[in-house]
Amino acid sequence: MARNIIVIGSGAAGMSAASAARSADPSASIRVITEDEDIAYSPCAIPWGIEGRSGWDEIVMHTPAFYKEERDIDVLTRTTVESVDGESKTVTAAGQTYPYDSLVIATGGKVFIPPIEGTGLSNVFVVRTVRDGKNIQEALEDAKRVVIGGAGVIGLELAVSFKSMGKDVTVIEMMDQVIPRIADKDMADDIQKHLEDMGINFVMKSPIQAVKGDGKVSGVTAAGKDYPCDVMIFATGVRANLDIPKALGLDIGQLGAVIAAPTMNPYRRGRLVPDIYVAGDLVQCESAVMPGATMSQLGSTAVKQGRVAGNNAAGGEKMLFGPVASPWVSVIGEKQIAGTGLSKGLASWYGIDVAEGCATGLTRARYYPGGKELRVKVLADKTTHRIVGAQIIAGEEATGRIDWLTAAIINGMTAEDFLSRSENAYCPPTSMVKDVVISAVEDLCKKL
Amino acid sequence: MARNIIVIGSGAAGMSAASAARSADPSASIRVITEDEDIAYSPCAIPWGIEGRSGWDEIVMHTPAFYKEERDIDVLTRTTVESVDGESKTVTAAGQTYPYDSLVIATGGKVFIPPIEGTGLSNVFVVRTVRDGKNIQEALEDAKRVVIGGAGVIGLELAVSFKSMGKDVTVIEMMDQVIPRIADKDMADDIQKHLEDMGINFVMKSPIQAVKGDGKVSGVTAAGKDYPCDVMIFATGVRANLDIPKALGLDIGQLGAVIAAPTMNPYRRGRLVPDIYVAGDLVQCESAVMPGATMSQLGSTAVKQGRVAGNNAAGGEKMLFGPVASPWVSVIGEKQIAGTGLSKGLASWYGIDVAEGCATGLTRARYYPGGKELRVKVLADKTTHRIVGAQIIAGEEATGRIDWLTAAIINGMTAEDFLSRSENAYCPPTSMVKDVVISAVEDLCKKL
Repeated sequence: MARNIIVIGSGAAGMSAASAARSADPSASIRVITEDEDIAYSPCAIPWGIEGRSGWDEIVMHTPAFYKEERDIDVLTRTTVESVDGESKTVTAAGQTYPYDSLVIATGGKVFIPPIEGTGLSNVFVVRTVRDGKNIQEALEDAKRVVIGGAGVIGLELAVSFKSMGKDVTVIEMMDQVIPRIADKDMADDIQKHLEDMGINFVMKSPIQAVKGDGKVSGVTAAGKDYPCDVMIFATGVRANLDIPKALGLDIGQLGAVIAAPTMNPYRRGRLVPDIYVAGDLVQCESAVMPGATMSQLGSTAVKQGRVAGNNAAGGEKMLFGPVASPWVSVIGEKQIAGTGLSKGLASWYGIDVAEGCATGLTRARYYPGGKELRVKVLADKTTHRIVGAQIIAGEEATGRIDWLTAAIINGMTAEDFLSRSENAYCPPTSMVKDVVISAVEDLCKKL
Repeated sequence: MARNIIVIGSGAAGMSAASAARSADPSASIRVITEDEDIAYSPCAIPWGIEGRSGWDEIVMHTPAFYKEERDIDVLTRTTVESVDGESKTVTAAGQTYPYDSLVIATGGKVFIPPIEGTGLSNVFVVRTVRDGKNIQEALEDAKRVVIGGAGVIGLELAVSFKSMGKDVTVIEMMDQVIPRIADKDMADDIQKHLEDMGINFVMKSPIQAVKGDGKVSGVTAAGKDYPCDVMIFATGVRANLDIPKALGLDIGQLGAVIAAPTMNPYRRGRLVPDIYVAGDLVQCESAVMPGATMSQLGSTAVKQGRVAGNNAAGGEKMLFGPVASPWVSVIGEKQIAGTGLSKGLASWYGIDVAEGCATGLTRARYYPGGKELRVKVLADKTTHRIVGAQIIAGEEATGRIDWLTAAIINGMTAEDFLSRSENAYCPPTSMVKDVVISAVEDLCKKL
């Protein structure tokens, strides 16, 4: 009999899992169940969609009809899973009960909204689904002032989009820096200044205390002050969706997400659950930098985990998901900011003392026109000299450089080893003869 | 007494050595002797200088006066070394004899010109020095037709520059592909087609037999056919300048270049020569990919070697130069082509059978405007599954990706390990959620 595979969730992890399952088992029955109305899109694209830089239809890469026709995958949209029975191996949704041989849980995360008054007012949004994006776009038509709660990368990308649409934009952040946790303060301050120069307002060290309004939002109170607005967005970070994992009794880790084996199987009271798989924002990962847990709520991670989960769920040749360094990049106005591995803040969570090496230069040879600023910071563990993290701010070409440094981190290179053995490709229009990445590691070696 | 350090040669290797020596020993007497009239420039910049995209004064980064004032380094330009005496440790140049404690030989390479008639005619050039570039620029003023001998990256970059200046350009190549040796034929053919679409003519599999003319060049004969021209450029590859090493009896390797220890000391009859150092295009390197020798005549390699040689020559804390994967990149018209490690041709030199994985995609998310074509090929040794080489053709951002793959190669990653552990930073304006590099390795794993 054909294997029954059910995937709950239709984001990057869920749809990758469904497709990988189909590749591994051409005859399986594969069903995706999702609350969403759109599938197979990247939430990272929503700021660009709101601004109109990418069309909504383009962002949604494939329709359920595509998956049915091309991959024989059934997708049930706008469908809430009511219950999962791990004993009888069934999923109940919209009154129907579906049996499974393998179940993939890829229900992602939800935006954390603080438990304060007024968050249910109209024109208060989160940014998670294409529907959210369309609703925000509509609300912005009559709006002059927008408040964004949270200065993470999504909050900042939205701020730039709204500003380019002519809005008066204020970002309110609880911490003393933008992009907290994953960026160091000096790098973050550089980005904040760039946004302030664009006319975006920042209110720092100010937890949001209330959302005010009469039916519709009219303002936000933070650290005792009022900030009037017509639209309010919560971009306050993502928490794992644990409803189904908890109902199934799966083990939840220290960071509030599901613990998974390298096969992407979860655990129940310390024992591997062989017929269930997890993938995406609800999973707690292992760090590739330091022994221990980490969160990696990135689209790139979700796709990789989904592929492993789906393949293994379908009995494909066994694949393993490795530990993560979690490289990330964001385009914010004219600048790109990227990071990998540990920031100083994350390093301190592992009890690690880090040395930092910095260098500033250009993305091209000095004499070649059009070169952009390139600023690189590399962090190493003072004890072992291993490179544990890096951050880049650049006018262009940050992504490949951060992927390069990620490869150094996951291979356990020390700063000295990197300096002795690393090479960069050079031609005047694309780099300096000694790339700024190497200059930063040179500086790092002097500090160690 | 102050240490006497003499550096012969003023290119990337020589000037890096002189500067590194100064950093390591503030009190040393440091003297650079060079035949060139300009110093401290990148020969890679000359095509852009001829086209006028970069000014000659910008390309020459520093003058002898700068080195004297800022770093207390004496630079003797337009000065030919007549002899080096390794016994008495002296260098004789322009009638003067200079004693040395440490000698750095960084005399680079010279363009190979085939032993045929007519190469001494006027308007026949090589592209090595700024002077060459200025002479070519002047000759082009009255020229309509240019023949370039050699379809390596310098030949192709020149072809684009000349075409953009309105010249009729013909490239004549002995082999059956452009960028022979370091690029595979399928990648090379893609670049050749791009140039043909720009109106550049190619004559393949045609060794140049004669340069014709009366005083001044009027045409080139290749494989029995005549190609009229007003200017002819030899871009036929670089051979190590071995005059001084041979006079000193230094060991020359299988590839026709000086064998060096990781300290950049050469050998004499198998014994390390402790007071002499070599750096740059005249050095034979060790491969980081396969045990054995390789050539790495790149500006980036020269700078690194110069730094190690100069530091060690000045008694700095010992530095070692590692084996090389030799990543390279070239911007040719609207395309970038980059490579690292072994091409299929180079792999066969080591007796290695390779499998290849390929993928094509975009440099940005599909729905994000402005994405450029990105084509990636990754090669692995069929026996060990180690990644041994990669090539990229892209409209943008090839450099960082090839540096990333270089880090994988020098760390000995297998294709399977790369696929399990590698991550790419993602945001819609700078990459696909699964970067094309990873898709290429996915394809590679299927082939192994």
